[in-house]
Amino acid sequence: MMKNKRGQVIVISGPSGVGKGTIVKEIMYSDPNLAFSVSATTRAPRVGEIDGRHYHFISREQFNDMINSGDMLEYAEYGGTLYGTPQKSVEKELDDGRDVILEIDTQGAFQIIKKFPDAVSIFILPPSLDELKKRLCDRGTENENSVKIRFGAAERELSLADKFKYLVVNDKLEDAIFDVQCIIRASRLQKTNRSEILEKYNISNKDKRSE
Amino acid sequence: MMKNKRGQVIVISGPSGVGKGTIVKEIMYSDPNLAFSVSATTRAPRVGEIDGRHYHFISREQFNDMINSGDMLEYAEYGGTLYGTPQKSVEKELDDGRDVILEIDTQGAFQIIKKFPDAVSIFILPPSLDELKKRLCDRGTENENSVKIRFGAAERELSLADKFKYLVVNDKLEDAIFDVQCIIRASRLQKTNRSEILEKYNISNKDKRSE
Repeated sequence: MMKNKRGQVIVISGPSGVGKGTIVKEIMYSDPNLAFSVSATTRAPRVGEIDGRHYHFISREQFNDMINSGDMLEYAEYGGTLYGTPQKSVEKELDDGRDVILEIDTQGAFQIIKKFPDAVSIFILPPSLDELKKRLCDRGTENENSVKIRFGAAERELSLADKFKYLVVNDKLEDAIFDVQCIIRASRLQKTNRSEILEKYNISNKDKRSE
Repeated sequence: MMKNKRGQVIVISGPSGVGKGTIVKEIMYSDPNLAFSVSATTRAPRVGEIDGRHYHFISREQFNDMINSGDMLEYAEYGGTLYGTPQKSVEKELDDGRDVILEIDTQGAFQIIKKFPDAVSIFILPPSLDELKKRLCDRGTENENSVKIRFGAAERELSLADKFKYLVVNDKLEDAIFDVQCIIRASRLQKTNRSEILEKYNISNKDKRSE
């Protein structure tokens, strides 16, 4: 009997304002075999946010318990709020054979890549630093100082792009979406993910699953 | 100044009758950055065949000279005719920044993969052995015995699929074409092929080019 195929972890990261959220939303929409990892947070839900769908809303105590028991794949604190990725929900999707997308900041992405060295890791870059600054300003939700801080952070994040397997430039959104879709499709065609075919034709696979 | 980006070697192999020729033709047609490697052969040109385009038609003596001087990336003899891939033409395309497609039998593909460990190697499989037999018969160009021989060879070739990085099943032709197109597009997005972006943002790349 064929064994159930396990999904892969897909890490999508990049500096703030680069458009990774939009790309992930479009990709999720078009691919039923992708699962989105729902983060946990200690902040209160905003109007319209649903527990378990937008976030797992948990207390700081619960969050710390999960960190201490190793149940958080990665976590970070921003402005007094904790955000993290619960291991259990990711593992469940992988076991069900679905690929799990983690849209995550650069630091969190590193933690994931260390834990899942086979992860398909994609870093989204802006076409230029000027364009990134423009996008951060155009959001309109930030004041001048906040744009400055975010832009400084973005420069630092960009310097870490070499930790990722794939680099996608988000110049035209449709192209960037197609790039990411192709990376995911290609990753599923890797021999290491096609044990069902190797078994079907009785082909021995000498390589272990690793890239 | 940015250095000229070198192309990659793309090896496409699979058993006889699996449809790799059709797939390669379609891919070449839609992608101007792909170059096709023109093989050398010792047989005479058939009607309509153009030297340098369909094959490099050379003498057995010239062919042997090229083997001896290491100018053949791979070669094989079928029914008294030598076929091979001249290194010089492949290297020229790579230096010009074009990806070179080598559509090649399994044995030749191994020789290429050994010489270019970074090659994007794709093995095309039939949806089933029965379907492969049917396709070989449907060609109409082969008699029963020749189909038997080709089918036996195909079974042996299939057992070597695990030497390749990607496995593509040619069930519906459009899907297989899109699979190969995605693999090529994704391979171009690998960090190791994007030195121009790393340089643009002054990102140090600690990894050497290898997968």
